[in-house]
Amino acid sequence: MRIAVYPGSFDPPTVGHLDIIQRAAKLFDGLVVTCMLNPRKKSLFSAGERVEMLELITAGIPNVRVESADILLADYAKARNAAVIVKGLRAMSDFEMEFQMALLNRKLNPELDTVFLTAGESCQYLSSSAVKEIGALGGDISDFVPAEVLERVKSVLSERK
Amino acid sequence: MRIAVYPGSFDPPTVGHLDIIQRAAKLFDGLVVTCMLNPRKKSLFSAGERVEMLELITAGIPNVRVESADILLADYAKARNAAVIVKGLRAMSDFEMEFQMALLNRKLNPELDTVFLTAGESCQYLSSSAVKEIGALGGDISDFVPAEVLERVKSVLSERK
Amino acid sequence: MRIAVYPGSFDPPTVGHLDIIQRAAKLFDGLVVTCMLNPRKKSLFSAGERVEMLELITAGIPNVRVESADILLADYAKARNAAVIVKGLRAMSDFEMEFQMALLNRKLNPELDTVFLTAGESCQYLSSSAVKEIGALGGDISDFVPAEVLERVKSVLSERK
Amino acid sequence: MRIAVYPGSFDPPTVGHLDIIQRAAKLFDGLVVTCMLNPRKKSLFSAGERVEMLELITAGIPNVRVESADILLADYAKARNAAVIVKGLRAMSDFEMEFQMALLNRKLNPELDTVFLTAGESCQYLSSSAVKEIGALGGDISDFVPAEVLERVKSVLSERK
Amino acid sequence: MRIAVYPGSFDPPTVGHLDIIQRAAKLFDGLVVTCMLNPRKKSLFSAGERVEMLELITAGIPNVRVESADILLADYAKARNAAVIVKGLRAMSDFEMEFQMALLNRKLNPELDTVFLTAGESCQYLSSSAVKEIGALGGDISDFVPAEVLERVKSVLSERK
Amino acid sequence: MRIAVYPGSFDPPTVGHLDIIQRAAKLFDGLVVTCMLNPRKKSLFSAGERVEMLELITAGIPNVRVESADILLADYAKARNAAVIVKGLRAMSDFEMEFQMALLNRKLNPELDTVFLTAGESCQYLSSSAVKEIGALGGDISDFVPAEVLERVKSVLSERK
Repeated sequence: MRIAVYPGSFDPPTVGHLDIIQRAAKLFDGLVVTCMLNPRKKSLFSAGERVEMLELITAGIPNVRVESADILLADYAKARNAAVIVKGLRAMSDFEMEFQMALLNRKLNPELDTVFLTAGESCQYLSSSAVKEIGALGGDISDFVPAEVLERVKSVLSERK
Repeated sequence: MRIAVYPGSFDPPTVGHLDIIQRAAKLFDGLVVTCMLNPRKKSLFSAGERVEMLELITAGIPNVRVESADILLADYAKARNAAVIVKGLRAMSDFEMEFQMALLNRKLNPELDTVFLTAGESCQYLSSSAVKEIGALGGDISDFVPAEVLERVKSVLSERK
Repeated sequence: MRIAVYPGSFDPPTVGHLDIIQRAAKLFDGLVVTCMLNPRKKSLFSAGERVEMLELITAGIPNVRVESADILLADYAKARNAAVIVKGLRAMSDFEMEFQMALLNRKLNPELDTVFLTAGESCQYLSSSAVKEIGALGGDISDFVPAEVLERVKSVLSERK
Repeated sequence: MRIAVYPGSFDPPTVGHLDIIQRAAKLFDGLVVTCMLNPRKKSLFSAGERVEMLELITAGIPNVRVESADILLADYAKARNAAVIVKGLRAMSDFEMEFQMALLNRKLNPELDTVFLTAGESCQYLSSSAVKEIGALGGDISDFVPAEVLERVKSVLSERK
Repeated sequence: MRIAVYPGSFDPPTVGHLDIIQRAAKLFDGLVVTCMLNPRKKSLFSAGERVEMLELITAGIPNVRVESADILLADYAKARNAAVIVKGLRAMSDFEMEFQMALLNRKLNPELDTVFLTAGESCQYLSSSAVKEIGALGGDISDFVPAEVLERVKSVLSERK
Repeated sequence: MRIAVYPGSFDPPTVGHLDIIQRAAKLFDGLVVTCMLNPRKKSLFSAGERVEMLELITAGIPNVRVESADILLADYAKARNAAVIVKGLRAMSDFEMEFQMALLNRKLNPELDTVFLTAGESCQYLSSSAVKEIGALGGDISDFVPAEVLERVKSVLSERK
């Protein structure tokens, strides 16, 4: 049984994240979507909110489960018996940092490999930051955020801006 | 009549910005240089100071006007009847982010296109951040900032560092 | 009156080329689509075929005209009173070479600027080479080539492979 | 059962190719290493030689089989019931072309996804071309080519240079 | 006598920094390793700690000396009679920013050139930030930090996280 | 005594090459400018012509000598007691290939390091290929080629095009 981990901030999850989750869930027996908690990086949504939103949007995919983690990804993957990390790449700038992270994670855990999926053509300009930026300025984010969590994202963006 | 918008932080304007303004003003009937106000991004110069400096350095170009805006660029362009956004590219790292922004803006406003101009050869290493960094450390910024605003930029850099 | 030149090999023209033509034609008063003839670069379609196909697909855009040229682009633009070159960018690798070309052309003809448009999201993976490659291997190219020239492209690809 | 295809020219196979094969074989139930034959791209080793060398170096990996193909990769993958293409990335320049290929292949066959693995740290400067270049100039290629095929590669390089 | 300056934050120094220092020390008669103090950039280690660690790890290299500086690099190099700045490049993203800095420094001090060394293959994923990140999450940093300063780095990372 | 090798095709030498030669000659005790002969890469100028032109343009720099070589660069450098290879970088695309070459050369000859200099701001769009392209189409190459060899380059370009 091959388990993959898809780590991210998901602050908030976008349709781009959901696209990667759906595709990765087909490639491996189990997929753990893991909300990485970084105390030094301020998030707009709380860990609980992010996990809850991820659970809502992945409810229909049987081999996906959602977790959060505040330890080293290489250690976390080992604890979950995961042999592979999944990352989505939108563009070159993503790639370079992810490339270094992949080499580093193999160094820290030689059993752990990283596979990259490319963002779908309509998701290449999409990021959680763009969603927050557009939402905060009153723009329409309904094409960027999964329908199940749209209202919640909108209300947080209007409250906390 | 074709109107273009040239958005930026202009904190402060550099000779690189002025080069783009002069060239874009030749390409379109009207050019609105728009100082984008981002409450989450701290600027060294106030919005008023930045607009005033832009007005000083563009005083001799008849089809340019200066504004500031705190709304979504896609909405702002529509309100100004602008069909095109102008951006200057110095290097690849600029390009990638701008590429994503251009796709995003077309998504938000399908009538709105983005054109890119390349920075002149003597402006490729020039940015507002570099001007602030060099100025704060007592370096000579006179080749990097338009003559009309040099004294003002220098005095702010020495006061507020 | 502002004239732009959109140079290329167009061997054959793709829907990506057509997208750039349609958008550039809105930005300038006149647009010359110019099939650059390079004796050292072997083309699959003859110059005449390429010009004819470009004329077919741009027949409905009044301010576009099609030409071919075998001189230096900087000289050609001057002869056409064009103030600007239009180029489409699909990705970073395009960008770098085009960036150097743009600086070089301004050096050769200081009155000549280059503006870049980004390929639409569904055209980023599209190139004349990909069309030839896919067509030669019997793949379906109908989404990649304008309908007006599809049959002609297909028949050349099956004849000359 | 999940089948992956690892396509390439393998002219000749390197230790970098072997590294990707070993890692991909762990991630999927079956891996088809496919030597893509491109009549327009001249190879130093014949199709038969390349397949034979790949068979030699993968003999010990039970879920790998070697084939050659001269059709469109998207069609080939469908014929093999493969849901995924595996590619190795050494560096950015690889990435960009591969990114476009991945989007194109999903367009041609929406059921077909591409996953990327990063080259190991000691393989990032390694390519079949480098092996041929170094070998032709009499350099030592023994760290770059799997031991099982080293003598064969050396003798071809000295004969056909 | 040719003097080179190797500037950096060194917060903390890594084996990657040490690799560059050892190689640069062979290329020039003298090498000044300079800890650049930037009041606007928060560091985990104090200036004194960073200088002390650099002195420890370079104690065996006779033509290296360690300093700290809070002035413009171009001015600092002049004051030290240094004709050249040495920088290590791990990857493209480094390169772009460093390229602009090199042009800028030549503009500020035309006598001052910059040479780039590439990070060794085992250091390409290594940065001070990665060390801090991994150390703060309890990961093993012993391969990333020179042995002479490992205990000190570990204890600071556990105290100040 | 530190000897550096500056390898290239120099087909023909440009002012960009000369700029790198002048700067590298200041950094090292001796600089060997080496015209690399590659039987598989067709050159416009013969090896003899290229060496002669390099000798003409470097005649005034006492610590430079010109050679040609048809062996592996790593072996050539060893034979010359050179500890360092010098390369000029114009842009990112140069960088990536050069980065891989630098790692490869250190692998082939661990005593051999590579240093990179950045092209001056007016040379970033300049290459031997651009010179040949522009010259062949009748453009003015006098700013791109050192004065000492301009007439010779022009006459070859007009004869052999």
